[in-house]
Amino acid sequence: MTELAKLQSLRRAVHKQRALAEDLFDSYREISKDVEGVTRPGWSEIEEAGAQLVADRAHELGLEVEFDELGQVYATLSGVDRPAPRIVIASHLDSVQRGGNFDGYAGVVAGMTMLATLKAEGITPGCDVTVFGTRGEESVWYGIAYIGARYSVGDLGWDELSALVRADTGKSLPEHLGDLGYDVEAAKTHAGKARLTAQNTRAYFELHIEQGPLLDRDGVTAAVPTAIRGNARYPEITCTGRYGHASAEPLDDRRDAVLAVAELINRFDAFWKRQIAAGAPDTQLTVGRIHTDVNQDGLTVVPGECRLSFNFGGTTQEFIDAGKKHLAELIKEIAVSRKVQFDVGRQVGSVPVPLNAGLRETLLASAETLGISCREMATVGHDAAIYSKAGIPAAMILVRNQNGSHNPHEAMEIGDFLEGTAILTQAVLNTA
Amino acid sequence: MTELAKLQSLRRAVHKQRALAEDLFDSYREISKDVEGVTRPGWSEIEEAGAQLVADRAHELGLEVEFDELGQVYATLSGVDRPAPRIVIASHLDSVQRGGNFDGYAGVVAGMTMLATLKAEGITPGCDVTVFGTRGEESVWYGIAYIGARYSVGDLGWDELSALVRADTGKSLPEHLGDLGYDVEAAKTHAGKARLTAQNTRAYFELHIEQGPLLDRDGVTAAVPTAIRGNARYPEITCTGRYGHASAEPLDDRRDAVLAVAELINRFDAFWKRQIAAGAPDTQLTVGRIHTDVNQDGLTVVPGECRLSFNFGGTTQEFIDAGKKHLAELIKEIAVSRKVQFDVGRQVGSVPVPLNAGLRETLLASAETLGISCREMATVGHDAAIYSKAGIPAAMILVRNQNGSHNPHEAMEIGDFLEGTAILTQAVLNTA
Repeated sequence: MTELAKLQSLRRAVHKQRALAEDLFDSYREISKDVEGVTRPGWSEIEEAGAQLVADRAHELGLEVEFDELGQVYATLSGVDRPAPRIVIASHLDSVQRGGNFDGYAGVVAGMTMLATLKAEGITPGCDVTVFGTRGEESVWYGIAYIGARYSVGDLGWDELSALVRADTGKSLPEHLGDLGYDVEAAKTHAGKARLTAQNTRAYFELHIEQGPLLDRDGVTAAVPTAIRGNARYPEITCTGRYGHASAEPLDDRRDAVLAVAELINRFDAFWKRQIAAGAPDTQLTVGRIHTDVNQDGLTVVPGECRLSFNFGGTTQEFIDAGKKHLAELIKEIAVSRKVQFDVGRQVGSVPVPLNAGLRETLLASAETLGISCREMATVGHDAAIYSKAGIPAAMILVRNQNGSHNPHEAMEIGDFLEGTAILTQAVLNTA
Repeated sequence: MTELAKLQSLRRAVHKQRALAEDLFDSYREISKDVEGVTRPGWSEIEEAGAQLVADRAHELGLEVEFDELGQVYATLSGVDRPAPRIVIASHLDSVQRGGNFDGYAGVVAGMTMLATLKAEGITPGCDVTVFGTRGEESVWYGIAYIGARYSVGDLGWDELSALVRADTGKSLPEHLGDLGYDVEAAKTHAGKARLTAQNTRAYFELHIEQGPLLDRDGVTAAVPTAIRGNARYPEITCTGRYGHASAEPLDDRRDAVLAVAELINRFDAFWKRQIAAGAPDTQLTVGRIHTDVNQDGLTVVPGECRLSFNFGGTTQEFIDAGKKHLAELIKEIAVSRKVQFDVGRQVGSVPVPLNAGLRETLLASAETLGISCREMATVGHDAAIYSKAGIPAAMILVRNQNGSHNPHEAMEIGDFLEGTAILTQAVLNTA
């Protein structure tokens, strides 16, 4: 076979595992279905059944299966050089309430489909390749994200972990862990110690649905994220002016909170557009909430108060910092010119996380040689951020999907999923 | 006496009636006091008692007293030429809920104080001068304003009048009229026929508290309104975009309702400022309400909807029309550039009403000769608009006050009130 024929052969081999992939998707959907979509709370019996499902199929495929102290499942295909640092293919088994079948779980199914392909084709990778099903990635259940991933790199001590309480049950994470039959003392002993390190892990890959409409809109199958976007978030900025009579109070005497806020938003929007035009990449700007006070506002009342959320981000901290600085400057200027006061309130957010340039290049090259359309773009927070921060080379592949994520209408063509898995499989073989 | 001495004598004569004015104010406050401030619903027993109070004092002063079919009170001082067209001094006896003692009633007290002064000084005006206490001016009670004034010029037919229902009682205006002992059939017969006309009324004067902070801020006692400001009001404009994921949806793909609305407000504000700089007089611009949908909005949600009120006005229709045109143009442009839709909803408002130039000049000249500080400014809707529209020469005088109006904290110095009344008295004598 020529090199190209070999590659096309690999792509076809991945597609031959379609039945396995569909069975994995259908089985977990059945276990976790809700009134609409699926619900898979972290450390619930449902998420546990998902981990067991992966373990069962891994056993059937002849893979080595392990669980860590938090019940996270690892399925390993042994490579030529077993002591060498391994490759990890991971994603999460939990979902949001009434979410879709793909956000998280698709990455686990991709890993399993890859290992089944290699098994079926009799290919032994250069090093061990492990599919890792993480737990508790979604922040809706315990208030923080990436719980299982952080535990696996020793970034979550017992004090923090044991204080986590699940929003829907009011029970702590250790209580749920005990209910599922795991050894809570073992978890306590291990918490803070890394299972996955830069020494024992040569690469971390994660496949995820895109969550946005871009690939579908543009007819592109997959994307390799450049970075995980960071952001600055202000849940509630308050602008305080002075209530007045809309007909009687002259314009130059007013302290109008809405006109002040409109100027703030519009000028920040214009600044953001200039920054983008100047080359700032992968940005977002969202004022998702804006409200005058329903108890005091009215058609004929000069508004004395306006509250709004403010949320912007990008893949470079420099750009986010420039946004923070400009927001502060605008607020200072408008407070004077419009005689109002701003209270920016609590500020939250996250720093951007770069993804590994070499692995990204490998993924892009794999897509190109397989003839699968693929682009680069930024992405949002994923487990991959935790591994990148822990010094493990990490990269991701996003697959075209419809209807976004975190809702029961999530959709992805299984053909697209298998194309993404083929890119991942090729990249893993090149990396091993 | 010199001419100046005579004038100063008139001013002193008005101030000598301070006790009468204070008694009129105190008596009606006592009748109508609420938990805070006063409440005087149109065609309530309270407003009726106010009309009777005026009638009683008028009898004591030796004035001719009449009531019309709606229980509106007329107190007349006869002039030298009794058949000649009369001068009417009017204002309203009702108030908003928990309003102040002065909005409306001060104009009636001013008229009574003037007639008491003329009586006390033995001055007989050239024509009859009538103090008229109107009813149902405030729109809060029956949903429309100026009921009594419109009835008095034949501008309110029985069909419309009899359909009016009071918001707090659920009873119709005729029912309330009957409860107060008035002849409902007589009202039905008279409705639509004018009692006051351009033929029998040579001038209409109305004294009112300013309602805004301008005179108090600038240390000016009184003002003569140039016109009653008109406006264009949009109680609820809806901007519809598309909800999206704030982290995943790229900026150029969004249909962000809040960014669209912020641009609309900010650009209209800039346009309005340019118009004012170019000479547009007496303007207002108020976006009193703005809301995203609390059931769907959020810090990380691209807003798919934003609702707002829009309200602008001025004293020239040309300026208001230019505002309407510009608003429509902005909406059209922003809908395209930001991929959103606007529904402007119901549009209400009123046309500006000019006040009589000759009477305004007479009032300004009176203030100047009396040495009382007085300026010109626009004002808001008052009964005077109805008489101006009916072709009766109408003008007003505004008196400095504190804390605005339509609230229990309304305040006015009795000394300022008497100064305003002196200007009015001088102008009436000059007009008679």
